[in-house]
Amino acid sequence: MTLTDQVVASFGGAASPRFAEIMTSLVRHLHAFIGEVRLTEAEWAAAIDFLTRTGQQCDDRRQEFILLSDVLGASMAVIDVNHPTGGTATESTVLGPFFVPGAPEFAAGEDISAGAPGTPCHFSGTVRSPAGDPVPDAEIDVWQSDETGHYDVQYPDLDQPRGRARLRTDASGAYSFSSVRPESYPIPHDGPVGDLLKAAGRGPMRPAHIHFKITAPGFRTLVTHIFVAGDPHLGSDAVFGVKDALITGFDGDRASFDFTLARS
Amino acid sequence: MTLTDQVVASFGGAASPRFAEIMTSLVRHLHAFIGEVRLTEAEWAAAIDFLTRTGQQCDDRRQEFILLSDVLGASMAVIDVNHPTGGTATESTVLGPFFVPGAPEFAAGEDISAGAPGTPCHFSGTVRSPAGDPVPDAEIDVWQSDETGHYDVQYPDLDQPRGRARLRTDASGAYSFSSVRPESYPIPHDGPVGDLLKAAGRGPMRPAHIHFKITAPGFRTLVTHIFVAGDPHLGSDAVFGVKDALITGFDGDRASFDFTLARS
Repeated sequence: MTLTDQVVASFGGAASPRFAEIMTSLVRHLHAFIGEVRLTEAEWAAAIDFLTRTGQQCDDRRQEFILLSDVLGASMAVIDVNHPTGGTATESTVLGPFFVPGAPEFAAGEDISAGAPGTPCHFSGTVRSPAGDPVPDAEIDVWQSDETGHYDVQYPDLDQPRGRARLRTDASGAYSFSSVRPESYPIPHDGPVGDLLKAAGRGPMRPAHIHFKITAPGFRTLVTHIFVAGDPHLGSDAVFGVKDALITGFDGDRASFDFTLARS
Repeated sequence: MTLTDQVVASFGGAASPRFAEIMTSLVRHLHAFIGEVRLTEAEWAAAIDFLTRTGQQCDDRRQEFILLSDVLGASMAVIDVNHPTGGTATESTVLGPFFVPGAPEFAAGEDISAGAPGTPCHFSGTVRSPAGDPVPDAEIDVWQSDETGHYDVQYPDLDQPRGRARLRTDASGAYSFSSVRPESYPIPHDGPVGDLLKAAGRGPMRPAHIHFKITAPGFRTLVTHIFVAGDPHLGSDAVFGVKDALITGFDGDRASFDFTLARS
């Protein structure tokens, strides 16, 4: 029996068949990787050290393993597996670290920026079913960075949310709000993941975007972004979150984006 | 371009071609694994949490990521890639966490146990070249657990090494020493790796063995164990270090093992 077969067999007695399935695939790919690149003992030791430093970088405010998953495209791969569009639904992308549940509620058209610095903009669009019917009363969470590339939660002294809101669609499935234009920003890159990006010759930037999380009874929750057309980082998003259909042009100070939810 | 191809392309600008090669293979296998098992977002989150806890379990005295590599057979896979036997050399196995450089030197036949509890035993054998010629003056590091399954360095209050020595082969390539019979013992299993073993229905035990590290000019350094025939854990070594050719029978209080070094 090969070493790989021995290790796979050692997971055969797991109480959970799903755990055994996952470990079987993981072990086969891990061993195939080691054999394929003929990993040296020094490279293996460097990998152990990297993973250790990644774990030790994590604390209440920083999750370096999620960041690692993001820059390896693993987070997006998991999203793609779990959120098929069925050819009609709006594509999903990463939730990111800046979502906060229970954001303040706003009425249609109101200004959610709450004083965030930036160029004023107006956003609008509709939420529809795969058949094109309006989805009324859908709950929309919106959150975004300001013109400095920072989210409200990154400012230590803010006493209220900024550029963060919960909205609802009206009877025609329409939503709208005013805010500021989002800007591109770097992911945290002063830790092991930053070292990895540097070794790859990659930058840490994410292109400008606004986050949406849309929930409605009978539909799958949609977590996605809309990206700002023309951003210089659209082709090199550090976390691979960009999808062409999510890129939105601005018409002066106005942007519009229509969402289609998948049936649950 | 698929997501996986995008991520692979992002490593194309690495200054080191070897780094790009390793990351290409790693990313392809990581994405294939996610797709193959259709990893859910909850499973992905559990994996992030597991890796974070593994990193945070590491300190000066504990390396939980090496332990993880060991129980997934990755450590042995790296050894197998880097230490081919060429059909003649003695097989390699894991170094383990208990090697200490600069062990005390002993002459042939001396007792290296230094009071370690256990059944007295005598060990002997030869070190040879692939052609069968004796290798004189080879340096042999030996280290082992006592009858309680502990190494000297695991006792907080010992003031000298026990069951740990440096020996040299004589003109005929022979070595010999007296010590105690080693016993099986568990790897540390009170952390995330212990949780993994439990979920797999696997035990933490390693079968009884003695470690050897043999160095001689003109030959590749050999790091290996000899295992004690009849140990109940030979078929379930938690770190997959056992190879049939390394299992040694005891004739009363005597054991003998001959090593063959690969040419460097």
